[in-house]
Amino acid sequence: MTPQDFRKHAHELVDWMADYLENIEKYPVKSSVQPGEIIDRLPEDAPVGGEPFAQIMADFENIILPGMTHWQHPNFHAYFPANSSPPSLLAEMLTATLGAQCMIWQTSPAAAELEERMMQWLIKMTGLPANWHGVIQDTASTATLSSILTAREKFSDFAVNRRGFVDPQRFTVYCSEQTHSSIEKAVKIAGIGSEYLRQIPVDEAFAMRPDALEPAILRDRENGLIPLCVVATIGTTGSTAIDPLPAIGEICQKHNLWLHVDAAFAGTALLLPEKRWMIDGIAHADTFVFNPHKWMFTNFDCTAYFVKDKTTLIRTFEILPEYLKTAEGSRVNNYRDWGIPLGRRFRALKLWFVIRSYGMQGLREKIAAHIALAQQFAGWIRESNDFELLAPVPLNLICFHFKPKDFKDVETVNRLNERLLTKINATGKIYLTHTKLNGIFTLRMVIGQTNVTLRHVENAWKLIQQAAKTLR
Amino acid sequence: MTPQDFRKHAHELVDWMADYLENIEKYPVKSSVQPGEIIDRLPEDAPVGGEPFAQIMADFENIILPGMTHWQHPNFHAYFPANSSPPSLLAEMLTATLGAQCMIWQTSPAAAELEERMMQWLIKMTGLPANWHGVIQDTASTATLSSILTAREKFSDFAVNRRGFVDPQRFTVYCSEQTHSSIEKAVKIAGIGSEYLRQIPVDEAFAMRPDALEPAILRDRENGLIPLCVVATIGTTGSTAIDPLPAIGEICQKHNLWLHVDAAFAGTALLLPEKRWMIDGIAHADTFVFNPHKWMFTNFDCTAYFVKDKTTLIRTFEILPEYLKTAEGSRVNNYRDWGIPLGRRFRALKLWFVIRSYGMQGLREKIAAHIALAQQFAGWIRESNDFELLAPVPLNLICFHFKPKDFKDVETVNRLNERLLTKINATGKIYLTHTKLNGIFTLRMVIGQTNVTLRHVENAWKLIQQAAKTLR
Repeated sequence: MTPQDFRKHAHELVDWMADYLENIEKYPVKSSVQPGEIIDRLPEDAPVGGEPFAQIMADFENIILPGMTHWQHPNFHAYFPANSSPPSLLAEMLTATLGAQCMIWQTSPAAAELEERMMQWLIKMTGLPANWHGVIQDTASTATLSSILTAREKFSDFAVNRRGFVDPQRFTVYCSEQTHSSIEKAVKIAGIGSEYLRQIPVDEAFAMRPDALEPAILRDRENGLIPLCVVATIGTTGSTAIDPLPAIGEICQKHNLWLHVDAAFAGTALLLPEKRWMIDGIAHADTFVFNPHKWMFTNFDCTAYFVKDKTTLIRTFEILPEYLKTAEGSRVNNYRDWGIPLGRRFRALKLWFVIRSYGMQGLREKIAAHIALAQQFAGWIRESNDFELLAPVPLNLICFHFKPKDFKDVETVNRLNERLLTKINATGKIYLTHTKLNGIFTLRMVIGQTNVTLRHVENAWKLIQQAAKTLR
Repeated sequence: MTPQDFRKHAHELVDWMADYLENIEKYPVKSSVQPGEIIDRLPEDAPVGGEPFAQIMADFENIILPGMTHWQHPNFHAYFPANSSPPSLLAEMLTATLGAQCMIWQTSPAAAELEERMMQWLIKMTGLPANWHGVIQDTASTATLSSILTAREKFSDFAVNRRGFVDPQRFTVYCSEQTHSSIEKAVKIAGIGSEYLRQIPVDEAFAMRPDALEPAILRDRENGLIPLCVVATIGTTGSTAIDPLPAIGEICQKHNLWLHVDAAFAGTALLLPEKRWMIDGIAHADTFVFNPHKWMFTNFDCTAYFVKDKTTLIRTFEILPEYLKTAEGSRVNNYRDWGIPLGRRFRALKLWFVIRSYGMQGLREKIAAHIALAQQFAGWIRESNDFELLAPVPLNLICFHFKPKDFKDVETVNRLNERLLTKINATGKIYLTHTKLNGIFTLRMVIGQTNVTLRHVENAWKLIQQAAKTLR
């Protein structure tokens, strides 16, 4: 493909992209293909000769597109969103064009320095402590793993990195019963072991109970274990429960534990001053993560990871082989030493484009609108005779189920809601996912996609009610 | 930014992108900005109101671009390349537009199944064992960490994941003195400890000495340690040395060690049947990694990680919280369980576009041409009176230095070559990096950028000779 061909095809593609985004509501939000349906249409062998772009693009439309779940559809209410936006898309086009590998400062100084500045912007925009430092990582899973590894090294005086674990050095990690599965994954990878992860009970709002946390720490210490780290969640995946940071932070301070705050989804809400109470007490924390790639209109992947003490982070991950030594040395940020992978994409650019394009005001308006829509939806559930809220709605996730008055048995209601979810998603009009709260099969409705409006939410509510009716 | 605005700006951007790629040789390949120069030009605070795209784009050109090192410049001979290509770029535009988060099959079936098929294509294209399985990860660092963690779990019967390390369970890992720093990083993260990483001596071609590997394994076993894993490298970062896989594989087989093969850069050369000897004996290996994002014209990030036994890989990383359960269960590949991060971009698409657009024949021709150019360059060095090759050139990396006959002392020659490298890179015409081989400061010239041709290599050689002359 010559540069001239590229120009031609890229222009064609831009029209395809713009058409796709303008017409996205015509696609079923969730793909209904069956396992194996796509792969069976793809040849078993790579072609020997090159193929024209028109053929590749036709196959993309005919084979791939029907198998895509459309995450940018305004009726994507599943999981948490992975939002894009026009300025983010434009930045991704530039990032791909430059094709810079930003492992160290020298391999693209502007990428390193823009990243530093964007992290400073986000610190101010979210109300994090002004003297913290930030770095972009791929996902919150990786950032949480980074935090736990840094804690492990700090509390072992960097001995695990050097000599591995020495018995009876046995660390324990604390999270709530509602914490994301990535915490357990991190505890395993770090060699701590999932049996030493303590899942602290939650209150009726599904938030960690500090009165259960402290005894657990004391019990472990009495048993000769080393309480290492608490992971507090601001906005759990199940129900956006908000762990009480002030109380948890005090306990960590008192008993000398590392504190990581996982605000992967809800962190974006901190752009609203009225939501800053969620991180009251953040000064007691050591690390904090949130994902602009979830709710801040910035293409996946873009995780913002913040640390109080960058020296310990860097000491945990630092490597310096001869072929990576540069004259600038430690006068610059070499972000390869701030996380697990060596290679890094130029991800700061899309943050810059998004923040400048919307401005803080524009971002706040969109986020506040999502929260307001969710409160409205929660109100409809509350007023309904046949539906019931199953958790508080502090932000924009509504946890609910269908519960007609004559259905009493939990298992029957659960099966009914499983059927309801399948039915709703099979329409292709909206896409919801589920969780279980106190053993109850719970429908999760997230109102946070970039382009979601009142119309989408009203239609979703109508569709849910209709689908429920036909189940009776 | 409305959809109409997006269409307009995206078309403008395509022209910018095509112009950039057509004129890339007019930019200095390595940025010459000083630390702090870029960040000082970026405001300390995010804007309150939104800004027009024209302003953002102007700042991109005026502030960011001068601070970029141009990885897609044909005279980028530094590190290893991170190649892009027109079809890869087009695919990245689509991936960003769809904005799908491909953590599990259900969140985009086509992404999961295209990934499965692309990994099968790559298995055939590189000559890996037909019954192996592949997954796309972000970087070889992460893939190598995945491999070592899988080994750790297999050899501990998944006990470390559950209970952490139990003394005196003490694993050892083996690599060569020339192995990439990511191995040490992985050994630290996995909790094994860098003191238990054995760096096996190399031969005169910088390849691991199997006759030194076996005694090291036996010694550790005698001392009550558990030899866990050997990492063999096909194409080291320093000099593309090729560890002898047949002999290493036999030792691993005999002593029951896990074998990971790191072909991050050189793996792409396996597309050439005449280079398949590099993985003779691969059947004895457990895992293999190479980076299409280095030399296979596929935008970073795109690491292809292959395993003999997918069950053990999945058992190592599997998590299944309620909110991620789907009806398809284990009938489909849920790639979140094949590595560390949960969230995943749709990276298979760019592989599909690149492989189909070039065809196997087109890819082979480009790779063979790069190798031929490197052999030509190596010939010039051999014939020169003032330059000397410092390592064999099995592929397309030339390790050499400037060594006029009247300079005898190693340290003097080293300092001379440090000055030479600085001088060469300061021209902005070409970009080389360095390593040390046997204590000798070594210039590394990689001939592997997508668009490099004989003209570029000839000019580079002229420039290097001229720069050297002025140093005398």
